[in-house]
Amino acid sequence: MENGLAERWGFRGSELVNKASAISIRSVLNEVMQNLDEADLRPTIPLGHGDPSAFPSFRTTPIAEDAVSDALRSAKFNGYAPTVGILPARRAIAEHLSEDLPYKLSPNDIYLTIGCTQAIEVILTVLSRPNANILLPRPGYPFYEARAAYSSLEVRHFDLLPEKGWEVDLDAVEALADKNTVAMVIVNPGNPCGNVFTYQHLKKVAETARKLGILVISDEVYDHLTFGINPFVPMGVFGSIAPVITVGSISKRWIVPGWRLGWLVTNDPNGILEKYGIVNCIKGFLNITSDPATFVQGALPQILEKTRGVFFSKIVNLLREAADVCYNGLKEIPCITCPSKPEGSMFVMAKLNLSMLEDIKDDVDFCFKLATEESVVVLPGVAVGMKNWLRVTFAVESSSLEDGLGRIKAFCLRHAKKQ
Amino acid sequence: MENGLAERWGFRGSELVNKASAISIRSVLNEVMQNLDEADLRPTIPLGHGDPSAFPSFRTTPIAEDAVSDALRSAKFNGYAPTVGILPARRAIAEHLSEDLPYKLSPNDIYLTIGCTQAIEVILTVLSRPNANILLPRPGYPFYEARAAYSSLEVRHFDLLPEKGWEVDLDAVEALADKNTVAMVIVNPGNPCGNVFTYQHLKKVAETARKLGILVISDEVYDHLTFGINPFVPMGVFGSIAPVITVGSISKRWIVPGWRLGWLVTNDPNGILEKYGIVNCIKGFLNITSDPATFVQGALPQILEKTRGVFFSKIVNLLREAADVCYNGLKEIPCITCPSKPEGSMFVMAKLNLSMLEDIKDDVDFCFKLATEESVVVLPGVAVGMKNWLRVTFAVESSSLEDGLGRIKAFCLRHAKKQ
Repeated sequence: MENGLAERWGFRGSELVNKASAISIRSVLNEVMQNLDEADLRPTIPLGHGDPSAFPSFRTTPIAEDAVSDALRSAKFNGYAPTVGILPARRAIAEHLSEDLPYKLSPNDIYLTIGCTQAIEVILTVLSRPNANILLPRPGYPFYEARAAYSSLEVRHFDLLPEKGWEVDLDAVEALADKNTVAMVIVNPGNPCGNVFTYQHLKKVAETARKLGILVISDEVYDHLTFGINPFVPMGVFGSIAPVITVGSISKRWIVPGWRLGWLVTNDPNGILEKYGIVNCIKGFLNITSDPATFVQGALPQILEKTRGVFFSKIVNLLREAADVCYNGLKEIPCITCPSKPEGSMFVMAKLNLSMLEDIKDDVDFCFKLATEESVVVLPGVAVGMKNWLRVTFAVESSSLEDGLGRIKAFCLRHAKKQ
Repeated sequence: MENGLAERWGFRGSELVNKASAISIRSVLNEVMQNLDEADLRPTIPLGHGDPSAFPSFRTTPIAEDAVSDALRSAKFNGYAPTVGILPARRAIAEHLSEDLPYKLSPNDIYLTIGCTQAIEVILTVLSRPNANILLPRPGYPFYEARAAYSSLEVRHFDLLPEKGWEVDLDAVEALADKNTVAMVIVNPGNPCGNVFTYQHLKKVAETARKLGILVISDEVYDHLTFGINPFVPMGVFGSIAPVITVGSISKRWIVPGWRLGWLVTNDPNGILEKYGIVNCIKGFLNITSDPATFVQGALPQILEKTRGVFFSKIVNLLREAADVCYNGLKEIPCITCPSKPEGSMFVMAKLNLSMLEDIKDDVDFCFKLATEESVVVLPGVAVGMKNWLRVTFAVESSSLEDGLGRIKAFCLRHAKKQ
């Protein structure tokens, strides 16, 4: 028996999968967490991930819970849904997103997905073809790199510029693109940078995409979670300049990433994606993959219609205060620099000045030792493409945040080079 | 703009996706349903699909609804889950499935998936490699063909033998396999055949797999939905003869396919899948794909523990009676032959004798005209690999079933050749 298997499976499973799954935020965070010291009696402070759902202050609104429970109890949504999603939910999202757009989305522009994750999977799969390449931001969200690798899409990175509030280096985009480039990706509000692109900058992104003949994939999973000067502007506003695919979710704004409901939206008033078969290919892929739970789809119209402004303001205010505390706290630490104060999402990027530290080799070493000595979990920048930076989440309970920042400071002072 | 796009997207999206998604049960049923005549005032009788959740008699148990609602209301499951699934749910499934096995499964043998669908996606993806082939049953469940095509796994079909109660043609399996064969798939209880494999036959399947050095993928999404002579025997019973991957779900037994919770299980007491890296590759793929809703995972221990035998007996009795009515009803129709009475799942395969019909070209033509003239939806056999057969679902409300069978008979009599 084993001989036959050894011959076939000496390869250790699909090479493509093994390659694509090599780096993920979850796997890096797991490695960091393996360095935690169980003997430390203090609580672990999780500043590594973008999921504050476990903190009491960030509990979702009962309106959303009621909507899901009602849909479940109705027994109308126990069966399979159409692969594109149920019509009332698609219609509700179309109306909801159209409020911020200069044109009306149709329910046919909306595809329900299993969180934003599956929306990314769908569009990268649909765009894959021999020799194609895609332009991704650096720093970025590494799930894009993983799915591109799995779909054999070549990745080319353009920089986000810290000195310009993490704007896209559009000259780099133009220099990287060629006739095999199919799309560029932006994440707005930014993960991992916590920035929010201006209307003018997004317009330039669209004009660049138009010039290059590529489409824009806009990851708006943190939509409306903004608390600085720049308001959130959906990229779909510029859908008539270049076709835009938006991916989004209820995960972040409603703080329910575990509910696994997201969407992919074609913002394309000129019908280019339909004309060139991309729309059909999206439908085709949805036919051979899984769907979000039907009763969560069934709850969506109620969730969108009934959630009150006061819930959103509460969450945004929490994030604004936390961002202030985080930025000010990090500023006090000599070996850490934040180029700009976060204005959106749940993260800030902070640069390590290793020359000021005595026995820290790099960002991974910093995070491993920080976990061991202070029971604080922070994501090494290398996981998002920026070696010797850190991604710090401020979406935690405020007492934990202050505790965590204090511990990071103590750690840095302890490891500082003696003058 | 359009020039750049035309150059890139003249290909109409990923060729692999377009090819893989060309045939699915859902798309064939949609085509059949497009033939329905809106002027017919009678209710449409849906005998095409395996989802009876909309019928009052098949409503799931309130215990399952309570479990999901409680998990939701606890707010403990709003966040992301580990990619393999949450431990209490994995443990509960391990214990549940071990009841029918000669050895104990560990929670580490269990991977939670988005219905059985994603479990199939995972295992076919993990096994794909250049030049590999997989052995699939004919008739079968075409999602396997679709996912194999998407993963560039070559498909080779072995027959299920109607004259032997739809047993696997094991001689054909041996003849088809070569050094590039990685696995064979069985579906038990059978979709589309409604058969249930005996202990002895499953043992022979395992011995054949061992001889060939391949693994067995056993689709047990209809597990325990049996109502004939053969009891349900999980393929995992023979996991020490050859490694077995079982895929399953709460979708069918609890009649909640829309809840999207399933599992992939490694039944491999000899640890061969671990040794050859298949287990690692499964985990790797789960890292780059989506998860089932966390609170449905959270409900699973309660669902498994608290659902009472009386609910399962009610469903099995309903199916037994419906299978009788369906089999006897079809037997009365001269141009239709059922080789055997269904003993499990929700389906029966019925052969069309076209020579007895006047103006029916094939199974698709039969189903299109039946939809138009009688508002009855039945799946053409070609969708499951058997041209000029039908797959008939009996898992519908009994009044609908009798009405539907009456209409099929009237249709056949009307189209019968005059003697």
